[in-house]
Amino acid sequence: MDPRTGLPVVGMVGAGQLARMTHQAAIGLGQSLRILAVGPEESAALVGADVVLGDHTSYDDLRRFAAGCDVVTWDHEHVPQEHIRRLAAEGHAALPCADALIFAQDKQLMRGRVEKLGIGVPEWAPVSTVDDVDSFAGKHGWPVVLKGVTGGYDGRGVWVLPDVVAVEPVVSQGIALLAERHVAMISELAAVVARSPYGQVAVWPVVETVQRDGICVEVLAPAPGLDEGTATTAQQMAIRLATGLDVVGVLAVEMFRTEDGLLVNELAMRPHNSAHWTIEGSRTSQFEQHLRAVLDYPLGDTRMTAPAVAMANVLGCPVDGPGIDERLHHLMARWPAAKVHLYGKRVRPGRKIGHVTVLGEDVAEVRAGAAAAAAYLAGTGSSP
Amino acid sequence: MDPRTGLPVVGMVGAGQLARMTHQAAIGLGQSLRILAVGPEESAALVGADVVLGDHTSYDDLRRFAAGCDVVTWDHEHVPQEHIRRLAAEGHAALPCADALIFAQDKQLMRGRVEKLGIGVPEWAPVSTVDDVDSFAGKHGWPVVLKGVTGGYDGRGVWVLPDVVAVEPVVSQGIALLAERHVAMISELAAVVARSPYGQVAVWPVVETVQRDGICVEVLAPAPGLDEGTATTAQQMAIRLATGLDVVGVLAVEMFRTEDGLLVNELAMRPHNSAHWTIEGSRTSQFEQHLRAVLDYPLGDTRMTAPAVAMANVLGCPVDGPGIDERLHHLMARWPAAKVHLYGKRVRPGRKIGHVTVLGEDVAEVRAGAAAAAAYLAGTGSSP
Repeated sequence: MDPRTGLPVVGMVGAGQLARMTHQAAIGLGQSLRILAVGPEESAALVGADVVLGDHTSYDDLRRFAAGCDVVTWDHEHVPQEHIRRLAAEGHAALPCADALIFAQDKQLMRGRVEKLGIGVPEWAPVSTVDDVDSFAGKHGWPVVLKGVTGGYDGRGVWVLPDVVAVEPVVSQGIALLAERHVAMISELAAVVARSPYGQVAVWPVVETVQRDGICVEVLAPAPGLDEGTATTAQQMAIRLATGLDVVGVLAVEMFRTEDGLLVNELAMRPHNSAHWTIEGSRTSQFEQHLRAVLDYPLGDTRMTAPAVAMANVLGCPVDGPGIDERLHHLMARWPAAKVHLYGKRVRPGRKIGHVTVLGEDVAEVRAGAAAAAAYLAGTGSSP
Repeated sequence: MDPRTGLPVVGMVGAGQLARMTHQAAIGLGQSLRILAVGPEESAALVGADVVLGDHTSYDDLRRFAAGCDVVTWDHEHVPQEHIRRLAAEGHAALPCADALIFAQDKQLMRGRVEKLGIGVPEWAPVSTVDDVDSFAGKHGWPVVLKGVTGGYDGRGVWVLPDVVAVEPVVSQGIALLAERHVAMISELAAVVARSPYGQVAVWPVVETVQRDGICVEVLAPAPGLDEGTATTAQQMAIRLATGLDVVGVLAVEMFRTEDGLLVNELAMRPHNSAHWTIEGSRTSQFEQHLRAVLDYPLGDTRMTAPAVAMANVLGCPVDGPGIDERLHHLMARWPAAKVHLYGKRVRPGRKIGHVTVLGEDVAEVRAGAAAAAAYLAGTGSSP
């Protein structure tokens, strides 16, 4: 407890935009998020009052950080399992726990466990050689998707290979890989749920996620054209996974919608890009909900605040011409209802530097607005 | 400009809950609010990344604070006029400017100027002796309202005197006073507007403010039972005042609704309690709008996000029994859709330590929910 306020101290390991937006939510709850940052210019470190500099792969740094926290949670999946277990063994609440988080860290273990829970995933196999991949393709056809078993995000660690010639450069990297059937999908969906230690769950409406080059570019809530039966199935899958894997906090389940049903693609056990729209678009944002969940507070209402909500990521793109501040002026003049979130990050091509959310009545309209505003802010759109 | 982000640096003098909530809004805009705090445990100082300790009545402290800010603005009205003028003379953007802010600092000057703009105020007169007050009462009747010309807030500096016997203890304090007719009012309203240096204005729907012992306890948006003509008149008054007084930033105009029309009660030139509901209840919160205004960004959409919104203040009340964290648990269990804002303040009787906002379809319902949740959080309500 913070003796100044009588309210708990949540520590978040990692200082990206997820910690940044979690800090915003923590302020409302009377708290100040404690943040473990690698450097002082990380996204959340720029705005937090209680920033500890340290390395999330160093147990000493983690222990120092956890001292005085009521609960420690994660902005990313890169904290070693053994450190999380040791924190717990030494009496720190560290959530989601190592036994749950492993399924967001290791894509191979995840697939095995999800299948055991009776939930579908695309056909897959561990592979390490060109022959392994070629043999997998013999059964499931080209293209084949290769994924690093650990460590990928935003399209990194994922390769879509058109033929056997493309395999060698990937397998020669010497990282653990799995092959996955390239699924013919109708769309990509995400079902996001929060779960508390008490076992309470709260799920948001299922969204469609639109990817480009393996990076999420747009999220549409609720998923357009999705029948109620499939939406309910997706939510039930998310709840079963959260409960079955003993997740505490937010669990994002990314799925492929196919002719043969829903298949799980990836899991994330933290606030996730597919639910940024909840900041304005739901009565309870995923960031507030994650805090409520890890603190075992009762969870908040997940109803939407508008019939249609669209979020578009702002992907960095080095541009000549107006700087970010000037582009922001123009965006605000053109789209006065657009909600802008900038992460304080230096621009690099393809890097997520912010997002824009638009609420409204009609999905096509909010989608067009969010996409145009985000593209303009990124410097890739046309002048408003 | 912050060289790390390419975005402007706004400095806010004062570290109360207004600066705290402005920091939340600044984070979304890619910024980190710079805060001048008297002490490290002030509400905003607990959550800000860029906190400067200093005294807002010391020009040296203000100058040191303003260095590197693109614009300086105010969390309260207590910065001396001469300091604001000197900051401006030395080239700092300090908004709202001294010539505007004086009308939020000096109730006597305000009344004179508002009348000159053709806008009504309750009958008033400067007073300094018992005879002055008795003579004022001879014209306007008892009770008489006495107000300190400067420095009051939340019911402090305001005395409602039933008869001449009660006058002596107030006038003997030796502070500059004005007497005001005790108006027979239908309700109290607030019209809140933002104005940019460019001259753009954006006004929110007019709200009803419910006071108890001179402290605002509830705000209802839009004001229930208010005819459209009166609502429009109130908005037009706010716009005329913002323009006529050259306000930049948020201007809150507190009004009495009487049988004879609308009369201005007080002005505030900063985010104001009567617009806390805008955080969830409007597409653009007053905190984001204040930042947009002082930075001369285009202003945001002020449409409501629900048909009815109620905000209730959480007023501190020392209680035996459950602490604030336990009360928060119970509140969340009972009202999962209530939006809680706690300010990180130590509890003192009557002190505003937070607020609760409820969105919905029906004003009576959201009002009852917000009031009950806030009372429970304060420790004055019955168990949920």
